Amino acid sequence: MIVTFTDFGAQGPYLGQMEMAIRRLAPTVPVVHLLADAPMFDPRAAAYLLAALAVDVPHDAVMACVVDPGVGGSRAPLALRLDGRWLVGPDNGLFEPLIRRAVEVEAFEIAWRPDRLSATFHGRDLFAPMAVRLAGGDVSGLRPVATPRRLDWPDDLARIIYLDHYGNAWTGLRASLLTDAGLALGDSTIPRARTFGDVPKGRAFCYENSSSLVEIAVNGGRASELPGIELGTIVTIC
Amino acid sequence: MIVTFTDFGAQGPYLGQMEMAIRRLAPTVPVVHLLADAPMFDPRAAAYLLAALAVDVPHDAVMACVVDPGVGGSRAPLALRLDGRWLVGPDNGLFEPLIRRAVEVEAFEIAWRPDRLSATFHGRDLFAPMAVRLAGGDVSGLRPVATPRRLDWPDDLARIIYLDHYGNAWTGLRASLLTDAGLALGDSTIPRARTFGDVPKGRAFCYENSSSLVEIAVNGGRASELPGIELGTIVTIC
Amino acid sequence: MIVTFTDFGAQGPYLGQMEMAIRRLAPTVPVVHLLADAPMFDPRAAAYLLAALAVDVPHDAVMACVVDPGVGGSRAPLALRLDGRWLVGPDNGLFEPLIRRAVEVEAFEIAWRPDRLSATFHGRDLFAPMAVRLAGGDVSGLRPVATPRRLDWPDDLARIIYLDHYGNAWTGLRASLLTDAGLALGDSTIPRARTFGDVPKGRAFCYENSSSLVEIAVNGGRASELPGIELGTIVTIC
Repeated sequence: MIVTFTDFGAQGPYLGQMEMAIRRLAPTVPVVHLLADAPMFDPRAAAYLLAALAVDVPHDAVMACVVDPGVGGSRAPLALRLDGRWLVGPDNGLFEPLIRRAVEVEAFEIAWRPDRLSATFHGRDLFAPMAVRLAGGDVSGLRPVATPRRLDWPDDLARIIYLDHYGNAWTGLRASLLTDAGLALGDSTIPRARTFGDVPKGRAFCYENSSSLVEIAVNGGRASELPGIELGTIVTIC
Repeated sequence: MIVTFTDFGAQGPYLGQMEMAIRRLAPTVPVVHLLADAPMFDPRAAAYLLAALAVDVPHDAVMACVVDPGVGGSRAPLALRLDGRWLVGPDNGLFEPLIRRAVEVEAFEIAWRPDRLSATFHGRDLFAPMAVRLAGGDVSGLRPVATPRRLDWPDDLARIIYLDHYGNAWTGLRASLLTDAGLALGDSTIPRARTFGDVPKGRAFCYENSSSLVEIAVNGGRASELPGIELGTIVTIC
Repeated sequence: MIVTFTDFGAQGPYLGQMEMAIRRLAPTVPVVHLLADAPMFDPRAAAYLLAALAVDVPHDAVMACVVDPGVGGSRAPLALRLDGRWLVGPDNGLFEPLIRRAVEVEAFEIAWRPDRLSATFHGRDLFAPMAVRLAGGDVSGLRPVATPRRLDWPDDLARIIYLDHYGNAWTGLRASLLTDAGLALGDSTIPRARTFGDVPKGRAFCYENSSSLVEIAVNGGRASELPGIELGTIVTIC
């Protein structure tokens, strides 16, 4: 299985072009587009989202992860093996929380290059075919890196990192950190609940979402319409 | 074949997570996402849309249907066999028009539970794996229900239930009900036509759409920009 | 492989219905949705986008191309074989640039009709099953056309034809036409660069995009927010 995690958008040509690059090499490998609207231009927010979503990805899948505002610049293309699972993508911090949470870390720079490499679409030209190679067991073209480059980022990101289709606001905090007191956001406190039906209609609450992150939601409404709820907003565990 | 009908949105992680839950159990089963933007929080409008779209689904497909604002509450998870086709989803009315239009109805409560069941994402955790089991012929874990719970809903819903990408407004009325006089909407009458080219540019009309529902459209324009055209608007057959 | 190019939108039922029409006939053929948000109601802009995106489609794939505002009217359904690759879609100009750029052109009118043909959804009812037939090597039901109908359109379209998810503006100009002087748009000149990192943050530039078209972009910003940047805007090579 090849699993994609990108900021390409569900609309537009990029996801289809990446899938076609996979399919022309591996017509029958299962391809799942796990997320196509990771925060644009923001590898840090995307990194904590990726770490949460990757938990459920089977360990024999290869993940192709592309949030890559520096494409065409000097950032290296990476292949990582984290606790047995392969991931490919840009060396821009996107894998930092995953590396931090992994027990066994092997890191490689992708030295292989395709016949044609555009300046701006390495997802299609480099990471997709490399994912196919790894899914087929071909590890040639990788140069081991003694220690992957590390960033001075926190273990969890106390910010809103994603607004979903229902208007729910995902934070970069793992739910195991949450206390019964809930979350503070600016001057207001958002109480904790188990699920939507446990609070009155129209009431905001925070809870452990289905990807084990702290999420802010409104029963029967849209948290994204509350004042202060936007990508990047700082939150605090009470 | 497994066919999904959800309000998850084409963007966001939910559709991909559900597909991954299917793929990890059944890597090669065909999966078709029939609709991902069913009316949110509105199982009744979604139900009439589902009934129209299900007509074309092959009878050996399993449909996983998730418009489920009560997830985590007390509504039961259902498996239905309607005229030979399996469907799974919440017992919240989503299947009411389909049950009403079916000749042979078998109803079951899903007694099987997965190892991990989140409070808020039964589409991924319960309905997706149950659909895989049924697609593979495994009917264990189902508890027969003598008579499925029924709701006092009309045979057809005389409201706008969906606004599509082109701005066309779908109603919950089957086109066989339409007369030559067209549709009334508030004080105005919308005449009937066969297709777009049969009316002048910019003119509103109603017609039998490609899913056999009455739809309001504008030749070369967007019906959704007309006054009064929104989800929930009441319409009347003239 | 069957590759779709449509204006159906990534949301909504149309793409899923078309895929289901393919899957019920060919459950295991790879299907790639290359683009689902081609310019609506505008076969000319869509045609130049299709010509650019088709370059990367494998030659043994069949392309099903549907931007078809005249559906239900008198336009003929076409099947083309261009340099060995099959394409199906409406005879409304959508294939004009591809025909012009092909060396070997064979054109056919699709005489075959399905048992059920809706007035408004030939993508699902006619083009999808015809693509499956061609992918399986079945060329029956085609009536040769001596010379395909041609339109008096330019070799390249000096207009903005697509705005992508990042706000980048694609033109219908192949990048081989671009000089170092860049592009003129109204009174302003947009200089040429190789990629995003080569210009300061916030600066507009034009460059050869990953599909070999001239594209207008802003480093770290959205070109679509610049004055005058919208679908249809005329641009000029300096």
